[in-house]
Amino acid sequence: MTAPGRIYIVGLGPGARETLTMQAQQAIQAAEVVIGYGIYFVGLEDLVADRETIALPLTQEAERARLSVERAATGQTVCVISSGDAGVYGMASLVFEMAGELPDERRPELVVVPGISAVNACASLLGAPLSHDFAVISLSDLLTPWPTIERRLTAAAEADFVIALYNPRSQRRDWQLPRALTIITAHRSAETPVGIVRSAYRPEQQVRVTTLSQLDPAEVDMFSTVIIGNTQTRFVGPWIVTPRGYPAVGVGQQERASPPR
Amino acid sequence: MTAPGRIYIVGLGPGARETLTMQAQQAIQAAEVVIGYGIYFVGLEDLVADRETIALPLTQEAERARLSVERAATGQTVCVISSGDAGVYGMASLVFEMAGELPDERRPELVVVPGISAVNACASLLGAPLSHDFAVISLSDLLTPWPTIERRLTAAAEADFVIALYNPRSQRRDWQLPRALTIITAHRSAETPVGIVRSAYRPEQQVRVTTLSQLDPAEVDMFSTVIIGNTQTRFVGPWIVTPRGYPAVGVGQQERASPPR
Repeated sequence: MTAPGRIYIVGLGPGARETLTMQAQQAIQAAEVVIGYGIYFVGLEDLVADRETIALPLTQEAERARLSVERAATGQTVCVISSGDAGVYGMASLVFEMAGELPDERRPELVVVPGISAVNACASLLGAPLSHDFAVISLSDLLTPWPTIERRLTAAAEADFVIALYNPRSQRRDWQLPRALTIITAHRSAETPVGIVRSAYRPEQQVRVTTLSQLDPAEVDMFSTVIIGNTQTRFVGPWIVTPRGYPAVGVGQQERASPPR
Repeated sequence: MTAPGRIYIVGLGPGARETLTMQAQQAIQAAEVVIGYGIYFVGLEDLVADRETIALPLTQEAERARLSVERAATGQTVCVISSGDAGVYGMASLVFEMAGELPDERRPELVVVPGISAVNACASLLGAPLSHDFAVISLSDLLTPWPTIERRLTAAAEADFVIALYNPRSQRRDWQLPRALTIITAHRSAETPVGIVRSAYRPEQQVRVTTLSQLDPAEVDMFSTVIIGNTQTRFVGPWIVTPRGYPAVGVGQQERASPPR
């Protein structure tokens, strides 16, 4: 029996070649076969040259995961590529779940190579909105009941998290973002800074800065990530900046605090 | 009057050179002066050769930000380096706030270069714990009142977020982690998978996988990040995997859903 191979699950970062890490490049070059969604290969041509490449449509994540496990089971070194970080709403969990169905001796070695996630990429183009606690929430209710998403929006808004919305809106999912904004608006001022970044670090990149009350959902699409500030977030020139702390607490003061009862 | 220069605020990723992006390398090489905490320069020697470097102790973040703005105001190209992502509890907000105090014509150009954040780096070493909505919470109460942190822990636990704890414990801050675990345990099963990663992607890296009830706070220090699964997170072999969805919802099913009333 052939010894099982290895699967690298690689995050490419937001898109352009310059946000790829050295580690991600090495993983792609170590692979015999590279599996991904077609557009992910754009810009990687030199890295995947002389390797088998398998491009499958956007909806076929499960098929990509299945193929990677199947190939690695024959002893191959496989690389599954994902945009952003493969561990954040990405391919990683699918590959782990499918590999987990195999008996130990047939299970390939799994290596996740982290990438710059959309939340970090978008934040970098807006200023410094993530300098305090934040919650990442997907508005896609394809695999998650909407009441669960709504409960998270409410919790994050009430507890003053900076909120990053993934999958905020698509042609078929158009009511979720307005509903999310209504929930958040109940706990934040109308002037709360909001950033919308579309296709970060790609040629078609668009960055828009607005406020919670001025945000028009129609300007948001499936290539966008939305970041909503906490109660301390403010504009500094054209930038969105969340201070690292709250004004009531001085440096050093809490070092002397006792545990709460 | 000299035209103001530029400040690159660069995230180096978790530590080792191979998690640096090309963009981060280019920013360092474009700078005349590179400012950071001493240990951040280890491994970057060739990139900073022939450049002025200023290393300031860990506690002097404000001083590093002030220096960068001061230097850029004289027309220099400055690079401020941070581990992980400079926008997540990092140097970015300090630099923006200080630059914001200058009149427009004297304000340097600010460019944030995103990096692999600790939460993504640690998740990659644990399997796929971040495949669903997650909350990032710092347990440091140096700049944030503890009741605010506690409110976030409660909200994130109740709303079934995967929870990543930054700054979970230090020699002087030793009661916050046990307190956080008590709060989370009220909403999660004792068997909830928990991962502790210390010094990800550095030679001294340690990865430990345990459960909420078995986690011993004494094993966690200031170089660690703790990731706690949601109610769906499970072990797949030695890995922590959060499924991408909830079992009750089938693919496609929600595409036909109507907006909630």
